Amino acid sequence: MRPLTTELLRGPLAYDGTQIGPLWAYRALGLQGDSLIAFVGRCAIPRRHMIDQEDVRRRARIASPRMLHFIAEHFDAPPDLEKAVLRQRVFAALVLDELRARSDSEIRREGDDLFTPREEKLSISVAAATPVSTKFHFGINVVRATGVGVKTAGLRDLGVQPKPFAEAMLEAYRREIEGVLDARTRARGAL
Amino acid sequence: MRPLTTELLRGPLAYDGTQIGPLWAYRALGLQGDSLIAFVGRCAIPRRHMIDQEDVRRRARIASPRMLHFIAEHFDAPPDLEKAVLRQRVFAALVLDELRARSDSEIRREGDDLFTPREEKLSISVAAATPVSTKFHFGINVVRATGVGVKTAGLRDLGVQPKPFAEAMLEAYRREIEGVLDARTRARGAL
Amino acid sequence: MRPLTTELLRGPLAYDGTQIGPLWAYRALGLQGDSLIAFVGRCAIPRRHMIDQEDVRRRARIASPRMLHFIAEHFDAPPDLEKAVLRQRVFAALVLDELRARSDSEIRREGDDLFTPREEKLSISVAAATPVSTKFHFGINVVRATGVGVKTAGLRDLGVQPKPFAEAMLEAYRREIEGVLDARTRARGAL
Amino acid sequence: MRPLTTELLRGPLAYDGTQIGPLWAYRALGLQGDSLIAFVGRCAIPRRHMIDQEDVRRRARIASPRMLHFIAEHFDAPPDLEKAVLRQRVFAALVLDELRARSDSEIRREGDDLFTPREEKLSISVAAATPVSTKFHFGINVVRATGVGVKTAGLRDLGVQPKPFAEAMLEAYRREIEGVLDARTRARGAL
Amino acid sequence: MRPLTTELLRGPLAYDGTQIGPLWAYRALGLQGDSLIAFVGRCAIPRRHMIDQEDVRRRARIASPRMLHFIAEHFDAPPDLEKAVLRQRVFAALVLDELRARSDSEIRREGDDLFTPREEKLSISVAAATPVSTKFHFGINVVRATGVGVKTAGLRDLGVQPKPFAEAMLEAYRREIEGVLDARTRARGAL
Amino acid sequence: MRPLTTELLRGPLAYDGTQIGPLWAYRALGLQGDSLIAFVGRCAIPRRHMIDQEDVRRRARIASPRMLHFIAEHFDAPPDLEKAVLRQRVFAALVLDELRARSDSEIRREGDDLFTPREEKLSISVAAATPVSTKFHFGINVVRATGVGVKTAGLRDLGVQPKPFAEAMLEAYRREIEGVLDARTRARGAL
Repeated sequence: MRPLTTELLRGPLAYDGTQIGPLWAYRALGLQGDSLIAFVGRCAIPRRHMIDQEDVRRRARIASPRMLHFIAEHFDAPPDLEKAVLRQRVFAALVLDELRARSDSEIRREGDDLFTPREEKLSISVAAATPVSTKFHFGINVVRATGVGVKTAGLRDLGVQPKPFAEAMLEAYRREIEGVLDARTRARGAL
Repeated sequence: MRPLTTELLRGPLAYDGTQIGPLWAYRALGLQGDSLIAFVGRCAIPRRHMIDQEDVRRRARIASPRMLHFIAEHFDAPPDLEKAVLRQRVFAALVLDELRARSDSEIRREGDDLFTPREEKLSISVAAATPVSTKFHFGINVVRATGVGVKTAGLRDLGVQPKPFAEAMLEAYRREIEGVLDARTRARGAL
Repeated sequence: MRPLTTELLRGPLAYDGTQIGPLWAYRALGLQGDSLIAFVGRCAIPRRHMIDQEDVRRRARIASPRMLHFIAEHFDAPPDLEKAVLRQRVFAALVLDELRARSDSEIRREGDDLFTPREEKLSISVAAATPVSTKFHFGINVVRATGVGVKTAGLRDLGVQPKPFAEAMLEAYRREIEGVLDARTRARGAL
Repeated sequence: MRPLTTELLRGPLAYDGTQIGPLWAYRALGLQGDSLIAFVGRCAIPRRHMIDQEDVRRRARIASPRMLHFIAEHFDAPPDLEKAVLRQRVFAALVLDELRARSDSEIRREGDDLFTPREEKLSISVAAATPVSTKFHFGINVVRATGVGVKTAGLRDLGVQPKPFAEAMLEAYRREIEGVLDARTRARGAL
Repeated sequence: MRPLTTELLRGPLAYDGTQIGPLWAYRALGLQGDSLIAFVGRCAIPRRHMIDQEDVRRRARIASPRMLHFIAEHFDAPPDLEKAVLRQRVFAALVLDELRARSDSEIRREGDDLFTPREEKLSISVAAATPVSTKFHFGINVVRATGVGVKTAGLRDLGVQPKPFAEAMLEAYRREIEGVLDARTRARGAL
Repeated sequence: MRPLTTELLRGPLAYDGTQIGPLWAYRALGLQGDSLIAFVGRCAIPRRHMIDQEDVRRRARIASPRMLHFIAEHFDAPPDLEKAVLRQRVFAALVLDELRARSDSEIRREGDDLFTPREEKLSISVAAATPVSTKFHFGINVVRATGVGVKTAGLRDLGVQPKPFAEAMLEAYRREIEGVLDARTRARGAL
């Protein structure tokens, strides 16, 4: 129906918050339409690019030496932030599933956050509306981040290889989104 | 913000497909607004109440001697079926989490379906748009259903008690929906 | 991106107004998702299936011995009748183009109606919202219809073969809809 | 259901047009979600912060030495400016009611403007859409404003104390919005 | 911009709940597009036509020997029940204004209800979404209704003539809706 | 219903991409509400004003010594880019019709582009969403443009006078938009 374009970028790319902007995948990569793009790279988000105003309010430092990043964009008509957040939650649940399948660690999801059993934070995430689409960023530490105000852990601590994990996530989300489209084109109204 | 009304009905109630209709919680139970209602009872959906047209097309028999049912209703403005499906997927992911926490069995989620490792189907689900709201039904077998064309399993097979499980799910979904509302009232637009 | 399913039905099928209902292509033909279906057959719409209330008000007789019918369905989220009407107009413009390319006659479009230079009506059309989608029906006389209160003409009068014309229309609309999706996934907001 | 956060700020705060921006209540005050915030302070809106383009076109000076300000924000999904304007009109009607109850003066409402019987303007207001919410500002002169091109009056002329009046308005709007939510979760569709 | 069609019907017409249905003004009166129609007549709403499920739940009897009725319909795209309720509240506020101008009685509005100082109910109202539009009904007793479970009063008790009052309301609502359209076509976004 | 304001500007006006911004017709010309404005003038769009990111990506030079420009704005609630693109396609189809009526040349439309039989490009166009409206620009060369990477032609090559053509287009689009509003206020839902 409306297949999702997915791609794991070969080289490293630093996430600086500009990738949450509208049409990033098209402008930077030439990938058009609904998409989920994965890449590995540093994370450092300057204040002016922070979307979550709680981060701005508490003067958070959002940074990590190496993360596996996912950027999703959906061209809803009209764009609706609530859909972006719901898709972000579905994505977080898929990450949880995939980590559980690849690690003995009892990871836990709370909203869009993932924690190890020792309450170490594995991930950061934000959902956003643009004038033409809805998006989310989901970043998972590859190695631990320090100096960010909370204990963290990374894929390396879980013994999970970033690239095969990323490939599995691209496929899992593609199937989930196809499933959502499938479900909403089979149901009659309840009157 | 917009708290979700949750309730586990004391007595048994049979699910016959009318509960997916608009305002059922209000009309039948006096519970108004966004809600998630749980109850235990038989399941038998006559053709004319089936929402999923795939079920109608393949002349499915949707029935179970005892199920734990969940009915969610959200008064979106305007109603949008895609949101209903996304919320249904988030709910299914929460069910998966809760079952894993209460059972040794390696349950698997695929879209809105849950399976045991032996490929026994644990649940049925549908999302629907009404003229004033969006809804989903999620039913989990308490005991196995037979004569429905697929192998099934139930909470009893997993050693999971329906009522405490239901209470945990009501709480988990309430927190998830609060989290979604929290997220979408903290994020600025990405321009 | 979101390809449109298109199909020209082999056998004849009478249009009686039920095909404008939600999910007809899926229920009757197993074709799921956004679609444009073409078929040739009689047209007779009983009052209770008329969508356009002007037809009901003026007690119109909507009938034709043989028409080439097109049924489009788009699963907008949320459904929006204005989009259905706009797509119907685009479709009517494509029909006009295709007829001009295949006939010497100076066909004229006025809204969703097509007329020959002698003011004979070639087509009927209606756009509708369903609880889960938006749809339109576009029917073009193959032979003249009589007793419908207006002068009519048909493809036969224009020397146009219905089936190749139908195939060309399916392809033209598929490209148009792809073009619309392409355009709305390339444009940034104007702030 | 979705209670409105209301608050009357203790100290004075000047309105300069930045408070109509998205998430102001959260960013500046830590008040999250749908809200109505009241405060007293000077009003002076530089051209670049004016929302109403009529003001910009006629080079209006929008200023007042002391006003009672109200800022409402609603996190509609999706945001819809028409809702913001409708809520603004309901709010203006509530202000009218409350002024009539507290003053002998025969105040008159015209759209979002309030006038005394001598055609003195009591208030200014604007509704706006942000990328994530809809908002309105409603400011009522406490003392007369001069040099703004029209005759004005203020609460002092009406013998109305700003703070108790503000408290009453916060409560009145909270009840109105609860009433709107109540109404739209009780009505079935009209088919 | 989008003028509202208004009309006061000459003869009497009984309100039985069917007038809240989609396109009533067009089907019954040939009046197309956004409209406000007024008429005087009996009111008796059988259960199956009740929109407000609270009325159904408490087995209300909704009836009055003579009422002044208003039916509004707006062709929102997409239809949104919240807009219907907001417009209904604005209308109720206009009725309050107009009654105060024509009567010495201190009428009070609470949501969509109007009461005399003796707590007699003057009016009934409901807002509804149809598949193609949003609507509201607002009925004001001309004479008192009895046997409806609450004390009532009517325009006659207030010394208000129905027809001139109706004409004034049609004009007041037309100006209000024009004002809403005017406001939302002058405001830039707040980014 | 919702008449479209149309106007052909007397004097020349250069299109530089700022006219696609929200409320341009109101801010620059005092023309409020849904509108289609035509003018003749140079075209040169600096990179920062380009809406279509394909143009930005391929570093397109968008320029023409003299074009007939059309700017449409529709105050949808909520704004929806897909509607803008659909309206743009309908407009392009009307341009095609009007050119065919005024020229012997066999013009061809492909999406929002018009070509002569020699594959010379006659026009440029883009659709955009603003925070409060949806818009499109449609520019047709009066004389050929050079140095833009493709072969071009203009109205002069077709023997078409810009001003009478512009007047005809304003009228044709006004009738089309009236027809769309007419169609969507006559159709009941298909349930």
